Amino acid sequence: MEKILECVPNFSEGRNLDTVEKIVDSFRGKDGVKLLDYQTDKDHNRMVVTVVGEPEALKKTVIEAVGTAVRLIDMRTHQGQHPRMGAVDVIPFIPIRNLSMADAVDVSKQVAKKVAGKYALPVFLYAEAAIHPERYNLANIRKGEFEKMAEKIRRPAWKPDFGDAEIHPTAGVTAIGARMPLVAFNVNLDTDNLNIADQIAKRVRHTGGGLRYCKGIGIELKDRGLVQVSMNMTDFTKTALYRAMELIRIEAGRHGVNVVGSEIVGLVPMEALIDSAAYYLGLEDFSMEQVLEARIME
Amino acid sequence: MEKILECVPNFSEGRNLDTVEKIVDSFRGKDGVKLLDYQTDKDHNRMVVTVVGEPEALKKTVIEAVGTAVRLIDMRTHQGQHPRMGAVDVIPFIPIRNLSMADAVDVSKQVAKKVAGKYALPVFLYAEAAIHPERYNLANIRKGEFEKMAEKIRRPAWKPDFGDAEIHPTAGVTAIGARMPLVAFNVNLDTDNLNIADQIAKRVRHTGGGLRYCKGIGIELKDRGLVQVSMNMTDFTKTALYRAMELIRIEAGRHGVNVVGSEIVGLVPMEALIDSAAYYLGLEDFSMEQVLEARIME
Repeated sequence: MEKILECVPNFSEGRNLDTVEKIVDSFRGKDGVKLLDYQTDKDHNRMVVTVVGEPEALKKTVIEAVGTAVRLIDMRTHQGQHPRMGAVDVIPFIPIRNLSMADAVDVSKQVAKKVAGKYALPVFLYAEAAIHPERYNLANIRKGEFEKMAEKIRRPAWKPDFGDAEIHPTAGVTAIGARMPLVAFNVNLDTDNLNIADQIAKRVRHTGGGLRYCKGIGIELKDRGLVQVSMNMTDFTKTALYRAMELIRIEAGRHGVNVVGSEIVGLVPMEALIDSAAYYLGLEDFSMEQVLEARIME
Repeated sequence: MEKILECVPNFSEGRNLDTVEKIVDSFRGKDGVKLLDYQTDKDHNRMVVTVVGEPEALKKTVIEAVGTAVRLIDMRTHQGQHPRMGAVDVIPFIPIRNLSMADAVDVSKQVAKKVAGKYALPVFLYAEAAIHPERYNLANIRKGEFEKMAEKIRRPAWKPDFGDAEIHPTAGVTAIGARMPLVAFNVNLDTDNLNIADQIAKRVRHTGGGLRYCKGIGIELKDRGLVQVSMNMTDFTKTALYRAMELIRIEAGRHGVNVVGSEIVGLVPMEALIDSAAYYLGLEDFSMEQVLEARIME
């Protein structure tokens, strides 16, 4: 695989494992495509698939999987705790190797056009693929969920980017777009005072005047008697992990509190960590081209 | 590529580019094999190739390249500054992914047996593949070089591990073995006093009572007015880069000197850097399986 694109489609089925497997089958045994993970959640009644591949091959498998989901999932009877508006709730494409964000946006638009035509499924473009600024944020699109979408989509402001202003009767609507990889990065503090974690999170995150590509909240780890600054790093190429860590350390010092550890939840691109290694080791003139695995994947 | 083995064969030709290209051709356009680099040195009259691949495919290309080198290089007229004992001076195999050192040793023995039989080329097993302890160190085998090898190899102590006790008339002998990836890691100090770098290198390296898998010397960077502790990390899975860095920082403090930067020369496996990122970020329960690229290469 010379060019690697990631896709993390969310399907509104987390209970009927027969349906789940039929959807996931689209990603199995395909040349140029690698299924990395799929997780179902019964409470959410939802499945999240993580798959990577060459753009063309990946596109085909995603379109196929959308077809299966549209055929098998009936949103009229769907119940689950997670907000959702369609059988395929959202499809983000993420550039991983030798691809730009513009390339990922292109792919997302091609897939959006294709599934809108092939399955009569209205599609909203979101995140970096959004054409309308109010559609950048997925929550804005999804507001009202499946149940109110038939009405919402007929309003001129919510005309879909592809397909008719008419929901698919059983599959609802879908959001398709492109974004950077997210890194879930949590930093633990040696206090049980949630207020301190909250205050630090507020100062470190973008909305509180902190780092541009960092979202964060304070949470309690009750069994450990600790609190945590729980972050989503939304573009590690611009807001490095070490910068968030060192800012938290500084802010924690104001409270007489120490950083005692951290964690990464789920997958992380190697560059996000190698970048922090390069900072802490003080590497001069280091290039990702020196990483053996990067060269192998070229 | 599910399993990745690296090979860094050294050929005794760095001037005749026609011969160089013919040897390198063996590594081009082969399924399951990727040529990462080849560098010729005219003064050394030597070429170093870096190639990775699936074990079976890689084995075949290496055997083919040895055949080409044996056919085209005549050691009787070879001159160069680097010590050498054969047309193919040394072939190390290095386990990179989903392979153990034992697997790399197996491959090295298979290649040794094959080239000894096919090309009448005596082979010494060295490093982790060595059967005789005095053959662990390549310099011991190479001592006397091509010119004295015809006599040396007839001594019982230097009977080759594969092939007859008779050098190949034009290609000499070859050492084949297995080792861990080397990481060339240099740390710069804000002094021009070479003696300080020498003393620190001595304390940090294995032979001076320091870290088990660390070799090191002090060198001067005259144009920058700095000195450097120049290291070879011979097994980063056991002697981590950050440990060498932090020990150097501590020792430098004794001299009132600071670490001002570092560099990695050439290629480095991602794990060597991710391991240091995990240390400095204080990551708890981190697994290489969380690295996206590691999962893609699985």
